[in-house]
Amino acid sequence: MQYHDHGFRPGDPELSAPAPGRPHPAELPECVDVLVVGCGPAGLTLAAYLAGFPEISTRIVERRAGPMEKGQADGISCRSMEMFNAFGFADTVKRQGYQVNETVFWKADAEKPDHIVRTGRVDDVEEGISEMPHMILNQARVHDMYLTVMEKSASRLMPDYGLELVDVTVDSADQDYPATVTLKHADEQPVGAKNDALASAREETITIRAKYVVGCDGARSQVRHAMGLELKGDSANQVWGVMDVLAVTDFPDIRCKTLIQASGGGNIIIIPREGGYLLRFYVELGSLKAGERLARDEVTVDRLINAVQRTFRPYNFSVKEVAWWSVYEIGQRLTDKFDDTDDSSSGSPRIFIAGDACHTHSPKAGQGMNVSMGDAFNLAWKVVSVLTGRSDESLLKTYSEERQGVAQALIDFDREWSRIISERADAEPAGAQETPRFQRYFIEHGRTTAGLSVIYEPSRLTGKKTWQSLAAGFSIGERFHSAPVVRLADAKPMQLGETVGTDARWKLYAFAPAADLTSEASAIGELCDYLGSDPQSPIRRHTRPGEDIDAVIDVRAVFQQATRNLDLAAMPLFLKPKKGPLGLIDYEKIFCSDQRSGKDIFDLRNVDRQQGCLVLVRPDQHVAHVLPLDARDELSAFFAGILLPAHGDEGEPAVRAMATGT
Amino acid sequence: MQYHDHGFRPGDPELSAPAPGRPHPAELPECVDVLVVGCGPAGLTLAAYLAGFPEISTRIVERRAGPMEKGQADGISCRSMEMFNAFGFADTVKRQGYQVNETVFWKADAEKPDHIVRTGRVDDVEEGISEMPHMILNQARVHDMYLTVMEKSASRLMPDYGLELVDVTVDSADQDYPATVTLKHADEQPVGAKNDALASAREETITIRAKYVVGCDGARSQVRHAMGLELKGDSANQVWGVMDVLAVTDFPDIRCKTLIQASGGGNIIIIPREGGYLLRFYVELGSLKAGERLARDEVTVDRLINAVQRTFRPYNFSVKEVAWWSVYEIGQRLTDKFDDTDDSSSGSPRIFIAGDACHTHSPKAGQGMNVSMGDAFNLAWKVVSVLTGRSDESLLKTYSEERQGVAQALIDFDREWSRIISERADAEPAGAQETPRFQRYFIEHGRTTAGLSVIYEPSRLTGKKTWQSLAAGFSIGERFHSAPVVRLADAKPMQLGETVGTDARWKLYAFAPAADLTSEASAIGELCDYLGSDPQSPIRRHTRPGEDIDAVIDVRAVFQQATRNLDLAAMPLFLKPKKGPLGLIDYEKIFCSDQRSGKDIFDLRNVDRQQGCLVLVRPDQHVAHVLPLDARDELSAFFAGILLPAHGDEGEPAVRAMATGT
Repeated sequence: MQYHDHGFRPGDPELSAPAPGRPHPAELPECVDVLVVGCGPAGLTLAAYLAGFPEISTRIVERRAGPMEKGQADGISCRSMEMFNAFGFADTVKRQGYQVNETVFWKADAEKPDHIVRTGRVDDVEEGISEMPHMILNQARVHDMYLTVMEKSASRLMPDYGLELVDVTVDSADQDYPATVTLKHADEQPVGAKNDALASAREETITIRAKYVVGCDGARSQVRHAMGLELKGDSANQVWGVMDVLAVTDFPDIRCKTLIQASGGGNIIIIPREGGYLLRFYVELGSLKAGERLARDEVTVDRLINAVQRTFRPYNFSVKEVAWWSVYEIGQRLTDKFDDTDDSSSGSPRIFIAGDACHTHSPKAGQGMNVSMGDAFNLAWKVVSVLTGRSDESLLKTYSEERQGVAQALIDFDREWSRIISERADAEPAGAQETPRFQRYFIEHGRTTAGLSVIYEPSRLTGKKTWQSLAAGFSIGERFHSAPVVRLADAKPMQLGETVGTDARWKLYAFAPAADLTSEASAIGELCDYLGSDPQSPIRRHTRPGEDIDAVIDVRAVFQQATRNLDLAAMPLFLKPKKGPLGLIDYEKIFCSDQRSGKDIFDLRNVDRQQGCLVLVRPDQHVAHVLPLDARDELSAFFAGILLPAHGDEGEPAVRAMATGT
Repeated sequence: MQYHDHGFRPGDPELSAPAPGRPHPAELPECVDVLVVGCGPAGLTLAAYLAGFPEISTRIVERRAGPMEKGQADGISCRSMEMFNAFGFADTVKRQGYQVNETVFWKADAEKPDHIVRTGRVDDVEEGISEMPHMILNQARVHDMYLTVMEKSASRLMPDYGLELVDVTVDSADQDYPATVTLKHADEQPVGAKNDALASAREETITIRAKYVVGCDGARSQVRHAMGLELKGDSANQVWGVMDVLAVTDFPDIRCKTLIQASGGGNIIIIPREGGYLLRFYVELGSLKAGERLARDEVTVDRLINAVQRTFRPYNFSVKEVAWWSVYEIGQRLTDKFDDTDDSSSGSPRIFIAGDACHTHSPKAGQGMNVSMGDAFNLAWKVVSVLTGRSDESLLKTYSEERQGVAQALIDFDREWSRIISERADAEPAGAQETPRFQRYFIEHGRTTAGLSVIYEPSRLTGKKTWQSLAAGFSIGERFHSAPVVRLADAKPMQLGETVGTDARWKLYAFAPAADLTSEASAIGELCDYLGSDPQSPIRRHTRPGEDIDAVIDVRAVFQQATRNLDLAAMPLFLKPKKGPLGLIDYEKIFCSDQRSGKDIFDLRNVDRQQGCLVLVRPDQHVAHVLPLDARDELSAFFAGILLPAHGDEGEPAVRAMATGT
């Protein structure tokens, strides 16, 4: 963490000083920049991100009376953990959660079909695909961590509980706050709500105007309804029971994620949970035809327990406490778009939906919470860029363009996976394959489960693959795959990906060619000269006077040498920028090869050692582009397609402190 | 973390449910079990530990009006980080602090004596000596983390600020609360103290009786004074200035820990600080003779800054903000003992001192805060054992016996190190050695700086080295040196040392011989039979009826096989114990070899692969004993010397749930 850059300040560095006028008064204001509807994983990801920008006024409303106590979602993919690391709470999840290390497969014993037998055991996460583990933790805990981020932010943002959306309309003629949202008091009211005033207040609706409204209000989204969008997809549903229990069993893989394909149906998924004792079971209950409704009364938790007991043979299973259980019937459904734009108009979106509001699928791939958070992480920086005047509103159209495709791919995967997992153990001809199909499919789709299969197609935000071969391991459109490096100034071994925060800034990683020893004429030196001084430099064009040099585009250099073979003193001043009101030097821009494991970041990510390259990373950690070190016009043009010029006269120096050495 | 073992409970698992009657009322009660005096690192370590035992009533008083805002200490050794990990906040320190990776040595240039030149660069911490890094973080932040532990504990313990110790006396005839403490209101009063009542209240003293009083009240300790003890040692003092600054410089090692030996004195130590910008400088100002007092008026921060500028040549140095500065004159001083026992009497101690109250030394080895916390960590579990009736009071005598020797060794080291570091650059004959003496000495004493040189001599708590060769890498008396393992039940790669918490429990690690595949007649199987069933088993003798099997002695087994070559189902039930009111199985007792790095824990710690062994670890993470797996009498006798029998009739089963399998 970097702090004290504006002078020494005592106290918790993770508790920001409150911005003037914050926290906001308890009453909802008449107008806000962003109104987020719903305190689920998508809504909280978005609100926690926006809370870091107190110049943007954000409110988040939630129908429930308070924070969630028991969540249903629990799977946290490697990808989400990478994102949590940017928010600062991946450590807490690691400490409190269950880490999924292996996935185990069981199947009806061919010789004794009422018994099950282990067919395989695989690493849940393929070695090296992420620096983060796959975790399981109750969604309610993740919510609390986001709420803590919000609480400690400069905005001191807190949800407004007990408010339900009635309607949202847009008046395009209103330039300032085109969206008008009508809210009403929900049946459930927050503890401490004034009861005297409540009777009359409950009858009244509340109107609030907003620049943008984001519906993160779940599968029955009122925002989606108001937008006239609908979830389309399968009309037939599979029915599964789910229960969180404390139980005693002699089933030997009970603390591993386990998939059991029993004979005659009754398939089961076991997800061990946080704390070392709790267990989640998904129990297959059959299928519903189109239009058929589930007879909920017929399903009891005892039926689920009995199903496990029957499937578990020859192992015993005794439930000591049921923490939570439910039955769900869910197909794969999706809206056509995630915003309120019309194909025929050129207008920019004003209303967005994210998470379950725009895509629903089964929980069995453990993707629900993750994809929802991914939606919000994609949208958050775009909203920030527009509201802080760095980008124009058209940037917001890319949200639906990018995330609708992701949801479609997830739904296709989930449909196939649900089908395969519901196969009867005897569906495959015996001996046809030694490894059962569900096991093979699971292994093939490990990257999907880890949340790493998301690829943004070429667009104004994602470059073409022209120079991809310069860094084959930083695949354009995919998330930036971190690798170990050593920071030059203090020899700290770390992950390069740790440099990405939740600050809406772009990262430009300059990988140095082998020969580069920072001589005057070196490729890195020339790059730094260009970036720091040339009027065409994207940094000069998009950074405002008085801002720190890295306020919009943060350049970091990675060298092939070990720290002891590089001289900090000889590095370009551009990589040792003076920042903040005191003009202090930021020493965290230069990295070296970590050679202790035998393979450094150049080896691990196939970076061209002769030529080096530029790897441009979006604020949401996805690789935007790979370019040659001297591809100045391309770099400049790429940013010009996303960011607005920061000042009229492009000849003026954009940033201070460039010319003065130490 | 393990939780939900008493049934599912929503909410933050790191926030304990408050014990009945907690938090205590704001007023001090008439009697407490333990009164801690002083909210420094020693006092807070002790209070945070005791707070985990709400059955013990603890209060901690502090002269200051509130929590510390700017601390002076900042060095956190690897050893302290291991301890912080047991408290649960090592991650936070890693995230917020500066990690010391390299130490760099500079010296006056022989050819140009008014310039300095780099003479060497070494790893600050030798590879592999701890799983934790050496960190730098303001003491005030560490205090806050302890306060959070206390606040979230079942005791909801909070310090009583603004109270100063006047006197403490002991009446040995009083069996219940023999210590009587007199307190008065300090000049500085906590914010929110009732001003109306203050005027009269301030005149009154407060009397509180306690079973034990622990003086953690610093170098001018009133508790020590009341005990009639004095700090003895060097009468001559060295004078150093210290300043925390935000500065701009072109000195290339400014973000590394740096020792500079200038010509003609004026030696300097640079400690980069947390946040990436802050810097601490220690500046030598000369020596004082016995009886001489420092003329404080003569020293200004400008003098310190000038000294750095003079020494830094040819590099520039410009201070932008001074966060804090001070001048200290400190020698090496120590009390003869750390408790109030008299050599001539057999009575048990009632008053203890810890930290600066009993040993003072220079800050230059970065040991002050660490050794103080180490004192408290040694004392805490002993106080818990006695107050919970598991050990008799004589155990408390071992605190002074063990820690006085540690302090003596530290002081000897510090005296030598201070002397060497204050040598003039020209004190050594030129060319005599290529590596300057201060650099050589630093490298030789890396283990001391890391806090790893503490060895407790053989005693009732520390066995003899008879069987040390069975596990040469777990040196008896030294701290347990963790190594990587994989947990069998869920294949989680982790550090074995993570299993030690702040719960006053003993750990018995059983390392299995190579051949042990958990057959009935295996060494581990026989050990488990003995520990679980034999009336002589220390577990049966020292665990109370109704308690979990691991309430006092927590047995964990480590196997040489990889997880996939071991069968959890075949493991002894003793290693899969049923615990808590629901009888849930604890799956975290069995570990396997982590073979990914090529060397597993048996290789790394030289554990005898043929015979295996027992490694017994104290609650403060020090190795108590190494024994053969079948050394039952020795094991039993060792515990009998420390723990009391838990029940009169030793034939009764000490613990439930041993006989019933799953």
